[in-house]
Amino acid sequence: MSRTINFNAGPATLPLPALTRARDEMLDFAGSGMSVMEHSHRGKEYEAVHDEAIALVRELLGVPSGYEVLLIQGGATSLFAEIPMNLLEKGKSAQYLITGAWGEKALGEAKVVSSLFGASISVQTTAVGEGKTKSYTRVPAPGEGKVDPGAAYLHITSNETIHGVQFNVDASRPFPDTGSVPLIADMSSDFFWRPLDVTKFGLMYAGAQKNLGPSGVVVAVVSKEVLERGRKDIPKIFQFRTHAENKSLYNTPPTFGIYMVRNVLAWLKGQGGLTKVEEMNRKKANRLYGVIDGNPDFFRSPVEKESRSVMNVVFRLPSEELEAQFIADAKKKGMVGLKGHRSVGGIRASIYNAASYEWVDALAVFMEDFARKQ
Amino acid sequence: MSRTINFNAGPATLPLPALTRARDEMLDFAGSGMSVMEHSHRGKEYEAVHDEAIALVRELLGVPSGYEVLLIQGGATSLFAEIPMNLLEKGKSAQYLITGAWGEKALGEAKVVSSLFGASISVQTTAVGEGKTKSYTRVPAPGEGKVDPGAAYLHITSNETIHGVQFNVDASRPFPDTGSVPLIADMSSDFFWRPLDVTKFGLMYAGAQKNLGPSGVVVAVVSKEVLERGRKDIPKIFQFRTHAENKSLYNTPPTFGIYMVRNVLAWLKGQGGLTKVEEMNRKKANRLYGVIDGNPDFFRSPVEKESRSVMNVVFRLPSEELEAQFIADAKKKGMVGLKGHRSVGGIRASIYNAASYEWVDALAVFMEDFARKQ
Repeated sequence: MSRTINFNAGPATLPLPALTRARDEMLDFAGSGMSVMEHSHRGKEYEAVHDEAIALVRELLGVPSGYEVLLIQGGATSLFAEIPMNLLEKGKSAQYLITGAWGEKALGEAKVVSSLFGASISVQTTAVGEGKTKSYTRVPAPGEGKVDPGAAYLHITSNETIHGVQFNVDASRPFPDTGSVPLIADMSSDFFWRPLDVTKFGLMYAGAQKNLGPSGVVVAVVSKEVLERGRKDIPKIFQFRTHAENKSLYNTPPTFGIYMVRNVLAWLKGQGGLTKVEEMNRKKANRLYGVIDGNPDFFRSPVEKESRSVMNVVFRLPSEELEAQFIADAKKKGMVGLKGHRSVGGIRASIYNAASYEWVDALAVFMEDFARKQ
Repeated sequence: MSRTINFNAGPATLPLPALTRARDEMLDFAGSGMSVMEHSHRGKEYEAVHDEAIALVRELLGVPSGYEVLLIQGGATSLFAEIPMNLLEKGKSAQYLITGAWGEKALGEAKVVSSLFGASISVQTTAVGEGKTKSYTRVPAPGEGKVDPGAAYLHITSNETIHGVQFNVDASRPFPDTGSVPLIADMSSDFFWRPLDVTKFGLMYAGAQKNLGPSGVVVAVVSKEVLERGRKDIPKIFQFRTHAENKSLYNTPPTFGIYMVRNVLAWLKGQGGLTKVEEMNRKKANRLYGVIDGNPDFFRSPVEKESRSVMNVVFRLPSEELEAQFIADAKKKGMVGLKGHRSVGGIRASIYNAASYEWVDALAVFMEDFARKQ
């Protein structure tokens, strides 16, 4: 079986051992004569998987004792609504720092909730231009924005998957220092590719379909302080405390999705954990940005150097025609997922943990060849 | 490989061909060199699966043109909140007809939402007793309750999985006739085991993990009238119209779960569709209720005859000790999932579409033997 070189932005490529494990156990999980997805979520066989997934999140990320790990349904998009539902109230305000399209979506839901609750939202943005010419090319440097010490929270999208703009890759662009205001980060494409200091965050959350598993599971890490602040007059299923108090088994969880997250995290641990994969991920990103910067007449990165994403490498060619040709020729070489998001165009290579250096190197060689031939 | 006889209430047994298909395609879906869960949800390979799942729901259930099929995340429990969020407003009222524990849960979330919105909820219940002695043993006959013609909707749980109490199994216990008030039914354990007249409902919804697939996907069928009535000032992700307008691709769907739903529905179609499986399902239920009624000194059904569920056969033995023995002995015969829900005790055999007549007959024979030996 030849495996396609997959640069999809998410759902994305998964580690082959996580998939073969799922295949081999599909009809007979743990000698039970049943698939893992046929087990009760209250049975000991599934609960061992569930507990292991949570324990691996804690171990690999170094989650300290004042934090809970939640496994939630609905996608990060549901959390765009659930975060303000939990944390906004009449007369309160929250801050949104917008560095791309996903931040805009989170802001949209926060505005709806703030209207319902009589709260307010303050917005800072790095957008340049308006409408069709609007672009996002950077994250702010420290001191560019002001944190309101009375804000309910400050929300960021720590890696903007569409624009390839990421916090804390370069030392000059750290995560915002919010003092005692909880920092909340949508980390969908920024989770589990490098170590992080969890204590800087009040809530981190990620759709699994980048570095963690298939779509349909959100992994969140939340401080007890944020949990306690949560409103109690919203539906129970949308209260974060409900999931914390019930080990994410309040209602039936997406058992197969969590099983796959467990498989992916077990693989990640076998790779040596986050410090090890960060080395490899930076090497992969450097290889691609090296080709881009080494061929300035042909390739162009729209992103400020200090904000360049290690996960989603976005670049342009001299014309849209050449971009279409590039994507078509790459496909012939067995490489897919390179088309930029429909809202911004261009090329995007998403190089999550499961995309090997060999794949990235093959793309880099192809880029060099393609540039040379034109 | 010997397959365990699985009477789990959900997540539940799945058709073997749906699982073997998933196993065989795990590393190479449709010749793409990738797993289906590594495909973009916007790519043509996954979209074909997504479209087929929706088309099979329409075809098998006979969904008429005034209705949309939605594939949503969050479990039926999320819909307990989303239904009143969409349909309640200041000064409006909704009716809840409670025939068991799941209806109580739906009611709980509706009360929270009605408080937030300044709406109200009226409740009818078939509960007998209070607290620890409370029990649910029947669905109401026509004319027992009164439908408020001004209600926003009337909500039922059409099969109470825990108590084994089901609407419309016996002709004397039809679904409520609500006139022009939308009838909303949680059909999690009542969907896709028999044909239904969709036009009697404003909204039907079901967690997939009974007759439709793995946990993590909700399948809903909703009238355009209910869609249009929905509030527009709630978060977009919780508006049913959002999913209807975007073919359930507004955000990243749980792609593998939907793929499994497709596999299960394709199998169901191969079985001859809902009319055919209803025949088999009634035969299976009759076999078990026959043993219970034929051994009245040993087995006892707590459920009124006209309300007995075809999906979840609940029964008691003369003592809790015998019940524990029954479960342990059954396990030795390769039968699992027979323990009643922790809130009610006793025995429960969930016999969804994928539980074969042979399995049910094996259980019936075991029940007869067990009764004889005591």
